[in-house]
Amino acid sequence: MENIITQLENKNFQELKQMLETLNIADIAQIFEQLETPQQIVVLFKLLSKDVAADVFSFLDPEFQETIINALKDKEVAAIMNDLYIDDAVDFVQEMPANVVKRVLKNTNQENRDLINKLLTYPENSAGSIMTTEFIDIKQEISVDQAFKKIKQKAADSETIDTIFVTDSKRKIQGVVSIRDLIMADRDEKISEIMNTNVIFACTHTDQEEVSRLFDKYDFQTLPIIDNEERLVGIVTVDDVLDVVTQEFTEDLEKMAAISPTEDPYLKTSAITHAKKRIFWLLFLTISASITGAIMSFFEAAFVAIPALVTFIPMLMGTGGNCGSQSATLVIRGLALGEISMKDYFRVAFKEFKVSLLVSSVLCVVNFFIVWLRYGDPLLGLVIALSLIIVVIISEFIGGGLPILAKKCKLDPAIMAAPIISTLVDCIAIVSYFLIASSILGL
Amino acid sequence: MENIITQLENKNFQELKQMLETLNIADIAQIFEQLETPQQIVVLFKLLSKDVAADVFSFLDPEFQETIINALKDKEVAAIMNDLYIDDAVDFVQEMPANVVKRVLKNTNQENRDLINKLLTYPENSAGSIMTTEFIDIKQEISVDQAFKKIKQKAADSETIDTIFVTDSKRKIQGVVSIRDLIMADRDEKISEIMNTNVIFACTHTDQEEVSRLFDKYDFQTLPIIDNEERLVGIVTVDDVLDVVTQEFTEDLEKMAAISPTEDPYLKTSAITHAKKRIFWLLFLTISASITGAIMSFFEAAFVAIPALVTFIPMLMGTGGNCGSQSATLVIRGLALGEISMKDYFRVAFKEFKVSLLVSSVLCVVNFFIVWLRYGDPLLGLVIALSLIIVVIISEFIGGGLPILAKKCKLDPAIMAAPIISTLVDCIAIVSYFLIASSILGL
Repeated sequence: MENIITQLENKNFQELKQMLETLNIADIAQIFEQLETPQQIVVLFKLLSKDVAADVFSFLDPEFQETIINALKDKEVAAIMNDLYIDDAVDFVQEMPANVVKRVLKNTNQENRDLINKLLTYPENSAGSIMTTEFIDIKQEISVDQAFKKIKQKAADSETIDTIFVTDSKRKIQGVVSIRDLIMADRDEKISEIMNTNVIFACTHTDQEEVSRLFDKYDFQTLPIIDNEERLVGIVTVDDVLDVVTQEFTEDLEKMAAISPTEDPYLKTSAITHAKKRIFWLLFLTISASITGAIMSFFEAAFVAIPALVTFIPMLMGTGGNCGSQSATLVIRGLALGEISMKDYFRVAFKEFKVSLLVSSVLCVVNFFIVWLRYGDPLLGLVIALSLIIVVIISEFIGGGLPILAKKCKLDPAIMAAPIISTLVDCIAIVSYFLIASSILGL
Repeated sequence: MENIITQLENKNFQELKQMLETLNIADIAQIFEQLETPQQIVVLFKLLSKDVAADVFSFLDPEFQETIINALKDKEVAAIMNDLYIDDAVDFVQEMPANVVKRVLKNTNQENRDLINKLLTYPENSAGSIMTTEFIDIKQEISVDQAFKKIKQKAADSETIDTIFVTDSKRKIQGVVSIRDLIMADRDEKISEIMNTNVIFACTHTDQEEVSRLFDKYDFQTLPIIDNEERLVGIVTVDDVLDVVTQEFTEDLEKMAAISPTEDPYLKTSAITHAKKRIFWLLFLTISASITGAIMSFFEAAFVAIPALVTFIPMLMGTGGNCGSQSATLVIRGLALGEISMKDYFRVAFKEFKVSLLVSSVLCVVNFFIVWLRYGDPLLGLVIALSLIIVVIISEFIGGGLPILAKKCKLDPAIMAAPIISTLVDCIAIVSYFLIASSILGL
């Protein structure tokens, strides 16, 4: 790779061209990320052979795409736009500023422009927004041999030839045949004899997470997408789903850590954007923690009388927060994987109750002896032990319950992780601790 | 689906058989999960036609697989074992108790038994452990037409026919051809003329996470796997990678929430196993939080003099914990996605420093006024504001730095999330808070 950059700096274009021909598209795209100047980017791009230029283009980051488009002539832009797969073209157009979009669409042929505009109208994260319209459809009356001819004709422009769709005159799906079925069939068999009529599909407005669950369940390579009138309008391929899964995971993780989700890579996001993404929940949390603080002032007399009580606050709050986030994580993940459904509410609650009894009994025995030995006061040990039991039970109950409640309210369970749970748990932990301390120690 | 269960209860086997034939394999597998008795499970399984029985079997949970195997005759076990794809057979054998494994392997033909035993020796989570050995390889001298004949012959036994591998007499890979290339080529072209010689591959001992990164980068359908002597020994397909991605993500999430990872679904895991998975870190945390508590006792004089100081502890600890987990989450995810690499250490540290300045300035202004208004004491407000700045800066620094440090020490960055970070942050937050309070308020 460094060799290529050296050749570029030395302007050995002939050699460079030959080297590029041996490389995989994804590797070529990676070279662009190492380049320093817009000039180098444009020069390298222009060295690519026609048949890989659009493919490499679809692998590039938006900033490089913009640099390249701005440097190309209208005719060259048109060539790329007409070579891109429609779903890649849509992704690209979505990332560009308005003036670039205008120029790009002006240089796209009518048919593709209409398709791009159509796909842009589907809601974000819907099957329609991630599908491509380049698939192969055939009629059931034709023979396997005729099917192969049609596939050969259309293969270059189709995102996949793995699955071929059988449609009627109104473009409704009647069946699917895999390329494997076609190869194994006799050349004169009719498609209707070998097609599989039990077709699993999704609609254009189906959420992309639901689409990825279908892939996970059925081990598909390709899923057909139909519109409101049940016509086949596109396909989603498994490599798109891999992107969706990664993106949805990252989003869930960020929500659970109280960060507003984003799709930009960490290092490419400015400090101010990072700060904006994090400040909302942090402000919410400092203010709600102040409420916990205000409640504590009711117990001032108790901790002035026995200052040692204060030193257990970090341990109780920490334990509550951790138990809550353990339960929340497991339940949120279970809901996302479809292992837990809404009707399991009582099973989850009962399981968390049993777990919290087991966990808290270990914690309370260990801490009872630690406190007793350290302070020489079994009563103080008892206060801590009892508080731990209450804190663990309540926090696992809240941690396990809130994500399910969120799902019931049609909210994303992931937002229930850190922020709201920790606030609730902290508050309840402190109150129960001081109530137990006051009554046992007679304060 | 309920209809099928009713038919099963009414013993309408003829009708049931017909209904099963129209269903997708994954849907049939789902019906088994609804069945109550082992008898029903076995009866339903025996109703499946021969060509789908093994496929359905590979979709079932281990407990159902065990029930079925125990009820089948040796000859029936043999039929299933020889129909299963090798990677599915390996998964199944790994989940069974020793006595079942013994019987199963006894009823597997010599060739498959050797393959299963070979695959079982690869380390867990390696490419070797997730690959399958059923691929199609051809020689470069043959024509496209001959290749199609070979594919037709072997298609039924190959996990995918999407990619065909070209090997030499020593089984080393020389190139790949996609089924699309073959279909688009002329029938009398030689394979050597159309094959792609720039083959990306992984080794049997490559980690499965690395394999999934290759799929993500290159948008592959199939990746060839070679052994130490560079011979092609298997392939990994994209649907296996989808499973790997989901599994690795769940594992990261659990580690980050201080839970020992597991692969079992939430509801199928017993309360005692759940408790075991959670207790280790909770114990570690209560004990380390006790250390924070012990440190607090040095400042007893301060909070007996001004009890209001105690009421800010939850807010400062909470803010520190949240800032730390935000940074840690972003950095851990960035490392996992390959957006951040080891050499970016200083860039991450500098970015987190800028972010923490921005975030803490907002938090400190807001809280300064809240405290001032509530307690009528600007000095107390100043203590809280300064403490917040210190806590936010330190916790973002620790949160962003520890995962990279873990990676440097060849540990999984994800274990650095919750437990260790929160302990460190809590401790530092409390100490800086009381030091600042003591010096400003002159305690």
